[in-house]
Amino acid sequence: MPTLFKDSLKVINVGLPGFGENVVAAGGQCLALDWRPPAQGDREAAWALAELCNRAAVEHANAVAFARFLEAQPVLVDIAPARECVGGMTSDRRLILHAGPPIAWCDMCGPMRGAVLGAVVLEGWADSVAAAAQMVEMGNIELEPCHHHGAVGPMAGIISPSMPVWIVENRQGGNRACSNMNEGLGKVLRFGANSREVIEHLRWMGKVLAPALREVLARTGPIELKPLMAQALNMGDEVHNRNAAATSLLFKRLAPALLETRVARDAAAATLAFIAGNDHFFLNLSMAACKAMLDAASGVPSSSMVTVMARNGVNFGIRLSGTAEQWFEAPANPVEGLYFPGYSVADAAADLGDSAITETAGVGGFAMAAAPAIVKFVGGNSTDAMHHSLRMRAITLGSNPSFTLPALDFAAAAAGIDARKVVDCGILPVINSGIAHREPGVGQIGAGVTTAPMACFSAAVKALARNISDRKTPR
Amino acid sequence: MPTLFKDSLKVINVGLPGFGENVVAAGGQCLALDWRPPAQGDREAAWALAELCNRAAVEHANAVAFARFLEAQPVLVDIAPARECVGGMTSDRRLILHAGPPIAWCDMCGPMRGAVLGAVVLEGWADSVAAAAQMVEMGNIELEPCHHHGAVGPMAGIISPSMPVWIVENRQGGNRACSNMNEGLGKVLRFGANSREVIEHLRWMGKVLAPALREVLARTGPIELKPLMAQALNMGDEVHNRNAAATSLLFKRLAPALLETRVARDAAAATLAFIAGNDHFFLNLSMAACKAMLDAASGVPSSSMVTVMARNGVNFGIRLSGTAEQWFEAPANPVEGLYFPGYSVADAAADLGDSAITETAGVGGFAMAAAPAIVKFVGGNSTDAMHHSLRMRAITLGSNPSFTLPALDFAAAAAGIDARKVVDCGILPVINSGIAHREPGVGQIGAGVTTAPMACFSAAVKALARNISDRKTPR
Repeated sequence: MPTLFKDSLKVINVGLPGFGENVVAAGGQCLALDWRPPAQGDREAAWALAELCNRAAVEHANAVAFARFLEAQPVLVDIAPARECVGGMTSDRRLILHAGPPIAWCDMCGPMRGAVLGAVVLEGWADSVAAAAQMVEMGNIELEPCHHHGAVGPMAGIISPSMPVWIVENRQGGNRACSNMNEGLGKVLRFGANSREVIEHLRWMGKVLAPALREVLARTGPIELKPLMAQALNMGDEVHNRNAAATSLLFKRLAPALLETRVARDAAAATLAFIAGNDHFFLNLSMAACKAMLDAASGVPSSSMVTVMARNGVNFGIRLSGTAEQWFEAPANPVEGLYFPGYSVADAAADLGDSAITETAGVGGFAMAAAPAIVKFVGGNSTDAMHHSLRMRAITLGSNPSFTLPALDFAAAAAGIDARKVVDCGILPVINSGIAHREPGVGQIGAGVTTAPMACFSAAVKALARNISDRKTPR
Repeated sequence: MPTLFKDSLKVINVGLPGFGENVVAAGGQCLALDWRPPAQGDREAAWALAELCNRAAVEHANAVAFARFLEAQPVLVDIAPARECVGGMTSDRRLILHAGPPIAWCDMCGPMRGAVLGAVVLEGWADSVAAAAQMVEMGNIELEPCHHHGAVGPMAGIISPSMPVWIVENRQGGNRACSNMNEGLGKVLRFGANSREVIEHLRWMGKVLAPALREVLARTGPIELKPLMAQALNMGDEVHNRNAAATSLLFKRLAPALLETRVARDAAAATLAFIAGNDHFFLNLSMAACKAMLDAASGVPSSSMVTVMARNGVNFGIRLSGTAEQWFEAPANPVEGLYFPGYSVADAAADLGDSAITETAGVGGFAMAAAPAIVKFVGGNSTDAMHHSLRMRAITLGSNPSFTLPALDFAAAAAGIDARKVVDCGILPVINSGIAHREPGVGQIGAGVTTAPMACFSAAVKALARNISDRKTPR
């Protein structure tokens, strides 16, 4: 002790910065360590974490799940109406799929309601939005999450039986994932618009666009999506909120093949013009590819790897590999973003859509370093973009050598969110997101960055720990 | 003095590091400043520099030239056979244009010779390469630099009367620049190949590709090139050695319009397949756009701004705005690069082509921060890429707000090389380059980074200083 007080004080302060202030006041040096208790002070979650950390079964399960994810080879194989290829969507069911975890009609946000009604009209189950509303209110339409049917959709994420969907197959695992096709910008169903022109555009997609592209795919053969995404990540995209390069690269593959099909010239021209005019066209394919990669990792008992993050406009929900189909939900965090002129946070719907499947797969916000334009758009700079990508290393199982980030010297992007690490270090998965107007049909009013809520991860680690201890002590 | 030797020595050593070694040996601290005398010790150049530095006339002239460069709006307006639009290329002249400063047939490098002979055959002036060689040897073919005719061409840079050329107009200044069209990779004329298939491919470009694209341009109207280049710089291109994004963006503009023309389906299909299969397709347009921007800045008396850098396979040549048409030449520096398997520096032709017009305009090597993949290809990393772009700030008149670099927080790229600054600080303009085999027809054997030789800049500042003093003291 006497020696201690002879030297000048050099202190590392853990936790509340206030503890260190006196040291500095007394002339000592103090380095503040930004530490917080694990699980944000949730004792039960912390105990669950203690159960799960360094447990061989969990480590092994995560290694298996992560390897399956890394090995996945998502390949675009076809386009078909949802009723022909989405599991459980038979032509005798009035079934509509939506984004995020399960939610009842009465709880849905404005854009999702608008989109559901539009889909009812599109299917011809009602001849007006009003009639559609009556039908839904009476419980005559089944509403289920896309994720319950191996599918994903951005924003409202509506998929109804007649809609064409991309079919992506994981060549390694054999599993398939679907997504709807991107409608472009402006008044579109995914933001809740359901006017006559929106429905007409969806009909055109089903009658002209999808059949033309189906013929193209028959000509090109399956298109590998991982190399396309990898290239796009080296060209300023993070393949969630920015898909300009990926769309261009895909377009370059599709256009020459289209002219080799028997698709009529006017249909071919309209198809090319539509894709060329929509920089988000690739988004839905990116999502289906991510879903296919992550489904490959699902269902490994004891694995704490996150396989789904999705939002229904009210709640954020996640799934773990080790708890398979179970959802862990919490109210969605607000989106810190920039709003288009004339709009503000008061106009915004809550975080919405299945597109966080991209972050779950280590792209999107996780690959922000690849797309500094995204973070610049919401007021950050390229250093912030790099920090987002670097910070995600703390909560992931590893990195994906298929996806490299030029700004970080082509380092592999962090991937495979470990729910344990999120709870332990309190770093939340970062998510890039569009912002929808809270009223149906207004559309996108901004874009920004948000995070997955901690409560989802705390609940997930508790459930996983219970599962494991239940298995150890059979009653 | 007594005080000086009481303190511990802290020394800044300017110049030779050896001077500082004794200080360090004696226990002092020494910071080495990497200083060299201006003009690499060339006294005459240093005096010229003293004449030119801080001289109002030069500063003013540079401001005028640089402003004209920045204001230029290069727009792709048409495609036509060279004989119809390249100045001085009439149908009664057997004129062939080549890259770089003037060079006689007997001094030309292998690839340029091969390409000249191929062009003679293409034009039907001889029916074999052997006959063409005889014709050229006898002096029956005129050989002049592209730059003497407002044109540019990559590598050998051959333009003959029947070849289709891109026509780019600077909407601001009214001046026009031309370039040949990119032939793709493999056996191509620009690397000196001149076999039957090379000539057939050039004929196809003239008969099918160019007329199809001419119809497309009639449909789209003029295409602004600066925004396209700007987008590409934000997508991993530096629009010299990497044009993957720019080509994709251009393709996305051209393809839908092509289907709206009367171009036959098979010709349209072949056109799209050719462009989609050639990531360098945009290079020649980038070059013509840069030429149009720089020509706008040419001919401002007293300006030390560099308006041309070009290589003929033997010499590197530059032109200044203030000395207009005059060339300042020196032997080209070697290219530090990576070679394709089976090739080495012994197989390499000297630095070749007009494509350094891109660096002259502040892209290419100057925008390396935008394209870390380029520097990675030759063994560097993304930090090296940034340093290249940052270092060029020391030798330029300013930066170009139209061209931003994401990795440097979207800072504007350095542009407008000031020959005075090059001579003064000894930093040489960095140039990205393909490497051609020294024998005609082998093609590209590597790629790398090189610099413009100092002697060009020393000669240029001497000439500019003479011009100015001649104007001051009329004899």
